[in-house]
Amino acid sequence: MLRMSSLFLRTLRDDPSDASVPSHKLLVRAGYIRPIAAGIFSWLPLGVIVLRNVERVIREEMDRAGFQEVHFPALLPKDPYERTARWDEYGPALFRLKDRKGSDYLLGPTHEEMFTLMVKGEYSSYKDLPLNIYQIQTKYRDEARPRSGIIRGREFVMKDSYSFDVDDAGLEVSYNKHRDAYISTFDRLGLSYNIVSAMSGAMGGSKSEEFLAPCPTGEDTYVLCKSCGYAANVEAMVTKAEKKSIDTPPQIEVLDTPNTPTIETLVEVMNKKYNANITAAETLKNVLLVADGEPICVLVPGDREVDLKRLEANLVGVKELRLFDDEDFAKRKEFVKGYVGPQDAKRFGIKLYADPRIVIGSHWITGANLQNKHARYVTHGRDFQVDGFVEAAEVREGDSCPKCDTPVVIDRAIEIGHIFQLGRKYAEALELTVLDGQGKSRVVTMGSYGIGVSRAVAAIAEQTHDDIGLVWPKEIAPAMVHIVATGKEDLPFTTAEKIALDLESKGVTVMLDDRKEASPGVKFKDAELIGNPVIVIVGKALAEGKVELRIRTTGAKSEVLLADVIKEVLAALK
Amino acid sequence: MLRMSSLFLRTLRDDPSDASVPSHKLLVRAGYIRPIAAGIFSWLPLGVIVLRNVERVIREEMDRAGFQEVHFPALLPKDPYERTARWDEYGPALFRLKDRKGSDYLLGPTHEEMFTLMVKGEYSSYKDLPLNIYQIQTKYRDEARPRSGIIRGREFVMKDSYSFDVDDAGLEVSYNKHRDAYISTFDRLGLSYNIVSAMSGAMGGSKSEEFLAPCPTGEDTYVLCKSCGYAANVEAMVTKAEKKSIDTPPQIEVLDTPNTPTIETLVEVMNKKYNANITAAETLKNVLLVADGEPICVLVPGDREVDLKRLEANLVGVKELRLFDDEDFAKRKEFVKGYVGPQDAKRFGIKLYADPRIVIGSHWITGANLQNKHARYVTHGRDFQVDGFVEAAEVREGDSCPKCDTPVVIDRAIEIGHIFQLGRKYAEALELTVLDGQGKSRVVTMGSYGIGVSRAVAAIAEQTHDDIGLVWPKEIAPAMVHIVATGKEDLPFTTAEKIALDLESKGVTVMLDDRKEASPGVKFKDAELIGNPVIVIVGKALAEGKVELRIRTTGAKSEVLLADVIKEVLAALK
Repeated sequence: MLRMSSLFLRTLRDDPSDASVPSHKLLVRAGYIRPIAAGIFSWLPLGVIVLRNVERVIREEMDRAGFQEVHFPALLPKDPYERTARWDEYGPALFRLKDRKGSDYLLGPTHEEMFTLMVKGEYSSYKDLPLNIYQIQTKYRDEARPRSGIIRGREFVMKDSYSFDVDDAGLEVSYNKHRDAYISTFDRLGLSYNIVSAMSGAMGGSKSEEFLAPCPTGEDTYVLCKSCGYAANVEAMVTKAEKKSIDTPPQIEVLDTPNTPTIETLVEVMNKKYNANITAAETLKNVLLVADGEPICVLVPGDREVDLKRLEANLVGVKELRLFDDEDFAKRKEFVKGYVGPQDAKRFGIKLYADPRIVIGSHWITGANLQNKHARYVTHGRDFQVDGFVEAAEVREGDSCPKCDTPVVIDRAIEIGHIFQLGRKYAEALELTVLDGQGKSRVVTMGSYGIGVSRAVAAIAEQTHDDIGLVWPKEIAPAMVHIVATGKEDLPFTTAEKIALDLESKGVTVMLDDRKEASPGVKFKDAELIGNPVIVIVGKALAEGKVELRIRTTGAKSEVLLADVIKEVLAALK
Repeated sequence: MLRMSSLFLRTLRDDPSDASVPSHKLLVRAGYIRPIAAGIFSWLPLGVIVLRNVERVIREEMDRAGFQEVHFPALLPKDPYERTARWDEYGPALFRLKDRKGSDYLLGPTHEEMFTLMVKGEYSSYKDLPLNIYQIQTKYRDEARPRSGIIRGREFVMKDSYSFDVDDAGLEVSYNKHRDAYISTFDRLGLSYNIVSAMSGAMGGSKSEEFLAPCPTGEDTYVLCKSCGYAANVEAMVTKAEKKSIDTPPQIEVLDTPNTPTIETLVEVMNKKYNANITAAETLKNVLLVADGEPICVLVPGDREVDLKRLEANLVGVKELRLFDDEDFAKRKEFVKGYVGPQDAKRFGIKLYADPRIVIGSHWITGANLQNKHARYVTHGRDFQVDGFVEAAEVREGDSCPKCDTPVVIDRAIEIGHIFQLGRKYAEALELTVLDGQGKSRVVTMGSYGIGVSRAVAAIAEQTHDDIGLVWPKEIAPAMVHIVATGKEDLPFTTAEKIALDLESKGVTVMLDDRKEASPGVKFKDAELIGNPVIVIVGKALAEGKVELRIRTTGAKSEVLLADVIKEVLAALK
């Protein structure tokens, strides 16, 4: 039983000044967490209980799925991460350190390498597979902007699993087992979420989905079709290219367009000077970038910006991507800033990529690769060829769903889980092979699956809180029932104590506000702020043999007979 | 149920080459842990279960004592550790790192500072105290020589508690509550241990005791009186100074003692040249050291060495201590190496400390502070005065118990717990005060209490293993019962499965060896190596309606009727 009279807890009346999201504000105010450094928090007793409850639910669901728990250190040697190149690729997000002998170590941001080596150390036959193993462990990422309390911290708790299979069909089975286990886990945690197609980004590999918990303060934006249920994160959204009816356009015509280095100025001049009656959507934006040191050009309709994150996620094999800067333009005089067109790409020796909207046969108004000149009727397939299509343009609310054509909405969410088909990247780099039935060596194929455990605490808080405090699901709450004794007499306190003991004997966890010096108002406010699902008030109504029952989720209040209180509480918890 | 057919486990037939102690060898061979780097290990599924079992027992006992669980990060900012000077004092044992902004961080080796600041942040009145809070958390120490597997690692799990009281009487109560909780914890863990007086060393503070688990491979030596039960670690052992019957000795006599720079050569010359008939015990060893930059001299009887660790622990206030080197002798010509005596200490401006055996009135053969000359009848109190007595000489088996005079024994052990009365050191440095009943500010007094959680796993293994494998107590074992099915037929396997399910329904945890391809011999060896307390073998005897029951601790084997197996197993686990 948690007794408020001795509980190590001080609630705060005011929001912490550095907190911007509700979960951060409320978890600090209600005495669950305290800041230690940027993105680093300690957990007070109530926070520890809630965190452990989330861990327990996750562990139970992983075990039920037949996954086996292991545990790795957080302090890891450099070598395995060097063999997969992630020692460098992680950049400044990796906490690196040296030991007393000068050897390099890191604080693990994720453990693909270590799991791969562990399996390599134990297993050698296809008969040993499939294998699904997981850990619940503390991870470290030196975020550039740690923020939103425990949603994006630098030290945080994660559940990470890895699957090991001999072939792609096996990986598909393991992937779906994890997907199912994640669904049961998040359902039990009381989270609402969408399962969203995702790119695998820096992780390599192929199929990947994110579990996103919708929330107005979430950092992830994603696309949702309310008609067919299609959901994708912005990087993974597939463009529905409209099939324009294409007539054969006239030959290219070069036009004088002085002082039109932007789409806006170009449209104005075209409409005023040439009576073209066009919108930005009919012009072509030629965006020059440097990809791994080489210049490339990406074409998008003039009414859309390039979404660099989206482009980066979809330009397979490119590690570093940045926009042309003045220095790049100075070096490559053939690219006339503001007047670039795709017509001379081959001559300039540059690769061209097009947004899927730049369909073959479509014609565009675009730069003429000459100062103060543009060209029209520049036709894809006739006047220029691209090296490939790529999802590069920004996604907008109202874009067509690639499955059913309905306009999609864009929503914000917190990423609470992520499942990946990693494939053979890590197994190849670290030489994890098994012998198959014919005695032939086969590289193992892997999946990687993560749940943000400490982040899930915040996500639940974000989705369930109200104006006056936290509102926990009963499996997660510090206690299922919060009993408040009020008044100066002993009777409410001894009665509250008796109710608490009765409930505990029935397996109900209890928090008892047995503070003598605190006022009823303070106690009610604290109960609401802390957010246990059922509140029982033992006070004035006791004279009539009654106690008050409050349901934190609905705010419903009712008086019940003292004799019925256990029955009523159990019913409310059903 | 743990099924060997799918359990992520490969036992090894051979000891790992780098392992020197049984727990290390067996935990690796039986598939509990794997090495990652020096002093850094990962835990395989069986290891995770055992580690969690130990954690659970500790947590239950802490909670039962009314201590409240909190949780701190491992990655900590420099500032609090700088304010207590431990950022520097820890030396190379502290893992230090910088974040992307260049700020200094450390990996917490222990959390006194953080707990002090946490309480300072929440509490302000004497009414809030006493408070006892704890965490179970991963800690880091960059040991110079990580060794003995998980006994002395660089990343390890600890339970650390801290008590906060307004006065010394309160601290005494908190200290004893922890002492009692530790006794129940270690009893439940099945460890045998001694509670041993200890110096507080670098932690500061006063009263301190260690829980030492006797074990031939232990790194800690301690003194035990088998007669009265007095126990102390070697640093804390109190010397029983014999009261010599002291007659007034003659005046100092300086003797020619050429080529006698050692006690051994001195004794030889004294006996041969001067017919003195003495032993080394009658000579005085003058050991020159540099303490925090200043030279000091420590006197011990010639038949004993100075124990530097013991001296360091007892020289209160000294932070750095080292022996004189050639350079020091070169700088201070007045100290004639091999011929130093205490007679001229004042003249030389050096502090003198004496082992308690150098009682006042005793006289000694010692150096004359002249090359090739010694002096005799040099008398404490007449010819030299000391600045203090200090426990400096090595402790030997057979030394007198300070309580009852019986000769003590020296034994080896693993330190599994440590309790400290820290006092006000941290509260003062970090300004943790509360207002007392009179509204006066009082500095809080603290205790600090630790249990090595991962080390306890090794300590249990060390104390309970035998020649053929691990032998876990039932609360700690991966499973209480290990059922082995043998043979080519299905019947033993289906029978074993049924027994397993029956036992599980009675709350007994089960490991089932359901491997079809492994031979009975391999299965028996694995069962013995893994070390679950009760082994049930379902095989040949099944034809007669019987199964075999083996008790891992005693090695006892018996055949029981299949109908009685549940009853018999439950009885064996009682």
